[in-house]
This record gives sequence, C-alpha cells and structure tokens, in this order.
Amino acid sequence: MAQNSSRLTYLDIVSKGKELSSFLLSFFPNSKKVYIQGENRGVNVPFRQIKVAHNGSGEATDHSFFYAYDTSGPYTDPFAGVEIGSGLFPLRAEWIEQRGDCEPYEGRPIKPEDNGWVSVKDKAAILLKNGAQKLPLLKKRLPLRAKAGRRVTQLHYAKKGIITPEMEFVAIRENLGRKGSSLRQGKGPLYSQHSGLAWGASLPEEITPEFVRKEVASGRAIIPSNINHPELEPMIIGRNFRVKINANIGNSAISSSMDEEVAKLVWAILWGADTVMDLSTGKNIHEIRELIIRSSPVPIGTVPIYQALEKVGGIPEELSWEIYRDTLIEQAEQGVDYFTIHAGVLLRYIPYTANRLCGIVSRGGSIMAKWCLAHHQENFLYTHFDEICEILRSYDISVSLGDGLRPGAIADANDAAQLSELFTLGELTKKAWEHDVQVMIEGPGHIPMQLIKENMDLELKHCFEAPFYTLGPLTTDIAPGYDHITSAIGAAMIGWFGCAMLCYVTPKEHLGLPNLEDVKTGVIAYKIAAHAADLAKGFPGAQLQDNFLSYARFHFQWEDQFNLSLDPPTARLFHDENLPQPAAKHA
Amino acid sequence: MAQNSSRLTYLDIVSKGKELSSFLLSFFPNSKKVYIQGENRGVNVPFRQIKVAHNGSGEATDHSFFYAYDTSGPYTDPFAGVEIGSGLFPLRAEWIEQRGDCEPYEGRPIKPEDNGWVSVKDKAAILLKNGAQKLPLLKKRLPLRAKAGRRVTQLHYAKKGIITPEMEFVAIRENLGRKGSSLRQGKGPLYSQHSGLAWGASLPEEITPEFVRKEVASGRAIIPSNINHPELEPMIIGRNFRVKINANIGNSAISSSMDEEVAKLVWAILWGADTVMDLSTGKNIHEIRELIIRSSPVPIGTVPIYQALEKVGGIPEELSWEIYRDTLIEQAEQGVDYFTIHAGVLLRYIPYTANRLCGIVSRGGSIMAKWCLAHHQENFLYTHFDEICEILRSYDISVSLGDGLRPGAIADANDAAQLSELFTLGELTKKAWEHDVQVMIEGPGHIPMQLIKENMDLELKHCFEAPFYTLGPLTTDIAPGYDHITSAIGAAMIGWFGCAMLCYVTPKEHLGLPNLEDVKTGVIAYKIAAHAADLAKGFPGAQLQDNFLSYARFHFQWEDQFNLSLDPPTARLFHDENLPQPAAKHA
Repeated sequence: MAQNSSRLTYLDIVSKGKELSSFLLSFFPNSKKVYIQGENRGVNVPFRQIKVAHNGSGEATDHSFFYAYDTSGPYTDPFAGVEIGSGLFPLRAEWIEQRGDCEPYEGRPIKPEDNGWVSVKDKAAILLKNGAQKLPLLKKRLPLRAKAGRRVTQLHYAKKGIITPEMEFVAIRENLGRKGSSLRQGKGPLYSQHSGLAWGASLPEEITPEFVRKEVASGRAIIPSNINHPELEPMIIGRNFRVKINANIGNSAISSSMDEEVAKLVWAILWGADTVMDLSTGKNIHEIRELIIRSSPVPIGTVPIYQALEKVGGIPEELSWEIYRDTLIEQAEQGVDYFTIHAGVLLRYIPYTANRLCGIVSRGGSIMAKWCLAHHQENFLYTHFDEICEILRSYDISVSLGDGLRPGAIADANDAAQLSELFTLGELTKKAWEHDVQVMIEGPGHIPMQLIKENMDLELKHCFEAPFYTLGPLTTDIAPGYDHITSAIGAAMIGWFGCAMLCYVTPKEHLGLPNLEDVKTGVIAYKIAAHAADLAKGFPGAQLQDNFLSYARFHFQWEDQFNLSLDPPTARLFHDENLPQPAAKHA
Repeated sequence: MAQNSSRLTYLDIVSKGKELSSFLLSFFPNSKKVYIQGENRGVNVPFRQIKVAHNGSGEATDHSFFYAYDTSGPYTDPFAGVEIGSGLFPLRAEWIEQRGDCEPYEGRPIKPEDNGWVSVKDKAAILLKNGAQKLPLLKKRLPLRAKAGRRVTQLHYAKKGIITPEMEFVAIRENLGRKGSSLRQGKGPLYSQHSGLAWGASLPEEITPEFVRKEVASGRAIIPSNINHPELEPMIIGRNFRVKINANIGNSAISSSMDEEVAKLVWAILWGADTVMDLSTGKNIHEIRELIIRSSPVPIGTVPIYQALEKVGGIPEELSWEIYRDTLIEQAEQGVDYFTIHAGVLLRYIPYTANRLCGIVSRGGSIMAKWCLAHHQENFLYTHFDEICEILRSYDISVSLGDGLRPGAIADANDAAQLSELFTLGELTKKAWEHDVQVMIEGPGHIPMQLIKENMDLELKHCFEAPFYTLGPLTTDIAPGYDHITSAIGAAMIGWFGCAMLCYVTPKEHLGLPNLEDVKTGVIAYKIAAHAADLAKGFPGAQLQDNFLSYARFHFQWEDQFNLSLDPPTARLFHDENLPQPAAKHA
C-alpha cells in the first residue's frame, strides 16, 4: 500500500529507526536500489530501478526496467542500515587519501558563539531537548586540509588531465545506466526522442569520464565535493549535464530541532533534491550542520555570512573579515561543499537600489550593504576574495557567487543594480579560476518571462560560461501561496536556456517556513521544471521516462503509470478517490 | 476572518441560499463589487475593487484602490440577491431585442434521450434526488433565432462597422478601470512596467470599442455570446487582449448531481475562470445544461458530440448527421456560447496515428475516428460544415474547432496527424468566416518546450490568426498528480507567444474527476500562467497588480499582500501557520 504523505511530521521519519529504508521505499512501489560499478575502486553508482509490469499482451517486454537518477543515498538501501543521525559511510575517504595531497590536522576548536552564544549549560539542555543525543554516534574525525602549496580541487585535477573517481562516478550517473543496456538499442515510438534546442549547450550521446573532466577543466561544470565530506555521492552541475535542483532547509530562531533538519534533508533527497542548502540561523547551528553533513549523500551548501552575523549578535556593522574568515574555516572543516558568498555587492552599486520598488531583498546582500554603508568601505568579501579562494582551494569548496542585488519584484528585474553585480561576479569568476576554485553564479529572483533569456545570455557571456544557479525565477508577484508554480515556469525556461541548477521555491515562499509537505511540493515542482528543461534541450535519453509512463497510460497499466511518476502515492491516491477498486487499475 | 477552502464540499456552497454572496466575498477581504458604466444602455461592467491599506507613513496614498478583472458575476454582488439555481438577470436581453434581427419561436421539444434515455418516471425520481427542484425557479422563455436570411453574430455586426454594447462592455472590461483613473497617471516604480515582447501582437495603450470591433471583424478575436444566453457578461478571446482561461466541469456516469455542477461553476468563476465548458455525459444532461447556462455570467462551451453519443447508447458507429444536427439545435436553443466541433479529423489522417505512442486521446477525435473507419466515410462534421455554420450564425454560437488528433504524449507532439488536422482547421476557419461565424482553434496537449512556439506559429499562419485555445500544453508526462504544474509551464509560454485562451488542467488530470479544491488549484495555476503571459507580452497595465503587491510585501503590509493576491485565504493561512499573532501582520 502506497503512503499518503500529506500528514507526515518530522517525528514520523525520525522515529523509524532501523525501519527507515523500508519506510522510505514504501513511497516508491516496485523500485529498488541498484548500483553500477565503475572502473575505479569504490565507484558504485546508485540508481533506482523501477520494475515495469508486463504489457497488455501478457508477455514480458524488452522494457521491464527503468533506471531513475537517485539522490536518496543509502537511506533507501535496505542493506546500508542507516537511520536518522547515524551518519553515512565515507565512500570517498579512500579516493581522497590516495591522492596524497592533503593531511589531517587538529582543527579549530568549537567555540560557544559557533552555536549562537549558547552557554555551556544552555547548550547541554538544548542538545538534550532537540535530539542531539545522536551526535555521539558520529565518529570524530580530524579535519583534512591541503598540504602546504597543494590545491585539492576537482578543477585542479581536471586541468592537470586527471580523471578522478568523482568524475567517473558522475559520468555513470548522468548516463542513467544507458551504457550497454537494452534501453538505448530500443526501436519504435517507445524509444523515440524529439530533437532538442540546446541554445549552445553541447550534449554528447554518452557522457564519458573524459567529457566530465573537460567540462570541469573549462569551468563550465563543477563537482562540489569538500574533502571533509567523504560521505558524498558525487554529482555535477553544468549546462551540458542534467539540470539539477537545490532544496533549502535550516532552522531559525523560531524552530530549532536538530533531528527535524536531518529529517527534512532525507525527505528532500528522497523526492529528488540534488543539493541541499542549510540556511540555519538559530541556536546550535554548528551542531546541526555537523549532523546534516555527516548525514548527507548530496552536496551541502551554506551562506557563511548568516552564521558570522549570529556571532556578532545580529548586528551587520559589527562584522569583520576576521570573524568571517574564522567562520569559513569552521565550516570548511565540517565539510560544507559550497559557500554562497556575496562578494559582488560593491559599495558603488548600492545607490542603484534606491529607486527600486523593493530595494535589496537578498539577506546576504542586505547584510553586506549595511556593512558597506556603515563603514563606507568596500565589501570585505570582495577585497579579501583572494584569501577566500586560498581557503576554498585547500578543502575543495566551490564558491557560489551570490546575487545580493537580485530583484525582489518583477518591477526591479534586469536593472542596473542586478546587472552591475553580475559583471563583477564575472571578474571574481576569473579570479577564483586562477586559484583552481570551482565556481557557480547565483541568479534571480523575480523576472517576467520576456526578460529571462537575457539573464541567461548575460551570465554566459560575462561569467564565461560558469554554471548558473538561479532561484526560480518567479514570473509574477501576484500569487503568494503558489510561488512554487510562478517560479517553476521561470525555472523550466531558464533551465532550458542553459541554467545548470534551479533553487527550489516552496508554496510558503514570502509567507513562512516550509513544512515537510511544502518541501516535497517544492522539490516535485522543480523536478518537473528540470526535467522539462532536459527534454527541451534534448538531453539524450531524457524522454525515456515520459515514453514509458505514457505507454503505460495508453494501455491502462495503472500500476506502471503510478510507479514511473515523480510521486507514486499521490498519483495513486488521486486515482483511488474516484475508482478505488483494484480492478480499476487494470482497465 | 478569511476562509480556508480545502475542506469545502459542494453542499457548503449550495446550502448558503441568500447568504451566498457574503460567503463568496469572505474569500476576498477588503474587496467589493463595483461597476463602471458605458455609453450604451445597460453596459455596467463589473470589477472587483480591492481597498489597499495606508502605507507605512500612516498617510493615505494615491493608490488606495486596485481594480481586478472580475469573472464572478452577480454571485459576489450582495445587491443582486442570487443563489444557486435561481438563475441570473438577462442583462443582454434588451441589446439583443433592439437589434431587431431575431425572433422567438416555439423551439424543439425536449425528448427523453436529451437526458440520456431516462424514462419519464426515472426522470422525475432523479430530478428530485439531485436538487432539480430549482428548475421551476427559472422563468421559461421561448428561444430566439435569427430571422430568415439574417446573421446575428458579433462578427457580422463588426464587419458592418457596428459597435455593439457587447463590444463596449468588453473594451471597458479589458482596461481594468484604468481609463481616466489615477492609476494610469502614477509615476515612479509603483507604476512602472517593463517593455513586453509581444511576438506580433498589437496591444494598444487603451482598448477602445472601435479597437474591439476591428479585432472581431478581422477574426483575430471572438466574443462568444449566444442570443439565448442573455445572462452573459461579455468577454473577448483574442491575442490582442488579456489571456483568458477556461475551466471544465460536468457530471459523468459516476456522479450526477445538478446542484453540484452549478456549485462548481460558481466556484470556478469565483477564482477567475473566464469561460466554463460543461462536459457532462451522465444522466439529466439537458437539465443540467439548462441550469448551468441560466446560472452563468461567463460563456458556456460544450462538445455536442458527447451528448449525441449518449443519444445512440454510446456506440459511435450509430451516430448520424441527423442526430448531431438535432443536438446542435437543442443546445443552441438553450444558449451554449461555443461548440467544440472535431471537423478536422479526416478519414485520411487517421492512419497517421497508427505509429503513435498514444494513438488518439481526444474523446471527440476518437469518436469521430471510429465513425469514419466503421463507415469508411468522411467525417460528417466536415462534410456538413456549411450546414453547421448556418445553424451557428442563427444564434451566434462560436465554433471552437477541436483538435481531435492532438498528441496525448510528449512523443507524439507536432507529428503529421496533429499538423494535418491543423491545416484542415485553417480551411474550415475560412469557411466559417464566410458565414460570419466566430471561430477559435483548439490546440494541444502534450508538447515539450522547444516545440511550443512552432505550434503557435503554425496556428497563426495556417488558421489566419484566428484565436488559439490550448489545453496546457503539458511539458512533460512524468508527473501525474501535478499536471496543473507541468501544463502551467507550457500554458504560460504559449500564452506569451500568442495563445488567446488556456484550458486549465487540474491535479486530477489523467487520474480522476476534480473536486472543488482541484478546480480551484487548476484555476489559480492558470491565472498565474495567463498573467505571466500578459506581463511578458507587455499588456498595458498588467504589471500594476505585481507592483502593488510587491510594494505591500516590501513594506510588511501583510493584509494588503494577502488581499492583492490571487488567493487571499491561502496566503494568510500559510503566513499564520508560523506567525499567527495579529502584530506579525504589521511588521
């Protein structure tokens, strides 16, 4: 029996214990976790294999399995035995060690302010209350760092011509098991695919490890993969690969349970989030982040200025390069895979926002603008960008250059503030590449449809084809409560035009914090947008899932139609509201 | 207190009686119905006036009101005193009479088969059970028909240079009260609007009655308005006007309460449906249609072949021109405003569907294909098209040329079957215009993004700019349960490219019958798509609502933000989940 998720709470997930994987798999009937081995040791690439029923003739067909890209990690592997808070196996540890270019060190001591000024006594109380009894389960490791003079980034290896296990992993993953399988030899409409319109993207029939290396070397793609996040199943972000989606989670001053955030992470990746950003701002944020990273098979991104601000009591004027730098080190040692850094908010651009309808709406942008105006000094993220890159290249943290001046309303789209910052992000991209730091560029926001392509084209031109990573964009402002839809429209379009990763928007955008159902709705809306973009670009093999599902629909194979869909329980539930009888699923 | 609608049933609406308008208005706090008078007698154009709170300074601003396009009719006018089943005031009766070109006549007697072969005894029982006690409330009228040799269509008048009251009504409506109001004189970002990209559409700063006339005369726009539907508040469908949306309702063999369907109609127009199609196929369909039309301030469309098929016991082969013709007369006399007619499904196109993944998925297309193949004769809707037009022009029924060979899967998009039919629809368009019959063209379906524009461009070219009316299109097949989203993406895009009306898709598409919540979700998703399209085309004034709402958002004027949104109760509910305190709505 499929699960209806609409009334789930975090506790339902947290309480599953060892039964977690069977619980999660129950949402995907007829699916099981399979792995395809690579040539490198330890390269075992996960897929969700969906068994498809026989066709109407009663005979087995040659299309009895479909392989879906699987972001859910060991949580849906019954043999992995993981539960909330247990942490994951460090599958990349051996790869990292064998490169011989980094070393363990004592690391920065954890300070009370890392967790929001909690006193030692308060901390113990809060940890106990919020389920951090899980923390001792995690084996303490010394952090790794590049040896003196070494650069340990995938970009560095790629430029040197080295194909890493991460690159091989990614190549197999992007092919969705099509290599050598019957799926690519199929004939007839079930295996057909329309020609795409790729707007300059270059999409090979098969993605090879060497193709991955070249894309990373050129800066057109990144594999966010901090050496202190060995639990990561590598993935790639670039416009010549499948369009990816990000889900934001994180506690706030209002709510701050640690287990809740890990449950949200697991929930988001179950439905298809390719990366997750932890935007926590409340108490215990260091501990929460630790638990999230140890629990995450997908790259984790953060906005370090949020935590730095907590350390100075929430007063932007009191921020300093030293506090920020210390925060970068803190998070680098934990294993954050990418940092959003608002280094393009320059002092001279701030006046451009004065005549806007909605001023500055990016939290990071607003913090930095306040700091710049208070000190009448240039943004310290910009002036210290070389030092930032030196840190990032020592851990292989990708930089996501934040769009602190993104428009917060349709009226402010593509204005001087937004575009000036974009040009500066291009300048910083070149600087980061000199340090072999992997880069992506963040984008808006609120953009009416006719201005979306200009955003993509300007980004490609001025940021030298570094991957674009956009929030939506929302194509109208008039539907709070439905911004997963207003933005899925823009996200699908910009994904088609070349955007590499789409940051999800949930129905609660502008209104409140997403609950589990909102997270799922946001992820599904964005899986739709990303897949629609893959189809439109003509990504090889992307149309197979559409074809399989439509075939099942046309032949009234209801179970297949449900099981091949993005959300089997919802499809089944909607069907059963009118026709609950089992017989109605076969005719 | 705003209403949460997620658990509403039809009965909640039906049971409101005289309290219906205050119940419906409770979903839109600070809104009231206002009318703007035209020059013609009886032209009183309804708008929803939203009162906007004072700005942060505490002073009243010059933007204290916003005028929203209002499709909800007298149901939201407390002074109209209408309830479910009471019927509406025939506001157009005088206009129609004064033209002096039509006359009442006895009309066709109602036959048992009109209601699905119900015997007289069965019928009484079913009517009683399903709330048809309301029918006697409706004053019996003799149907009207054109006098011999006269054509009574808006297209006919437009070609003669006559500006009808309907045209004036539409012109005022499209301007959203901007004429002469302070709204168009505003300065600064609150009144700004981006330049649109209109793809050849021609969007004047102000829509005049003469502009409406010219557009109707050219065939680029239609005003569906059967002379037997005098309750109609005229609206226009054309790419030089606001993009419109249609909602489908209708009973089926499974469920067949009459009050339910009227409740669904009222619910759909409350949230913004511009036209409603009654796709009933169960029992009592004549009576249900009568109640729907008498209750509807928006144009009602039908697919007459559905009822004709009921009359021959559901066996397509038994259909005949005579039965179909009789059904057209039956529905024409009731006041249906537009008919979907699948006259382009030609015998020779049917083999083109053999190699499709999903064959023929249009119900009307499939019925006609079966008839053609069984008789090995050309489609009688095609061979009798002139006679059909003679009927239509005698009542001013618009023809919506159905796409019976539309693709039912991404794989089948833009194929020979689909495009061959489109070219034939162009041929039929010219023929209809010779009869002064208003025409629109139906379109797909399932289309990946890169093939959407080709659909629009081919339609404009081969159907001579007759308005396009599309179902979605769905941009991927993989998300049953979320097809309001897969299709809102395609709908927004094709609306931008020039599609005049978007037929909604609800979350239940492919799975079951929509309930009230699904109808609302579908309508809101399509209001988003239509508005995003208006913004992208640069429709004058379209951005005002976005600007007003974003201004309120930026200044933490929560009540304004809710009230200016498409769905105030949902926006408020989502906000209150985290911050229920009244104070949280002001800061």
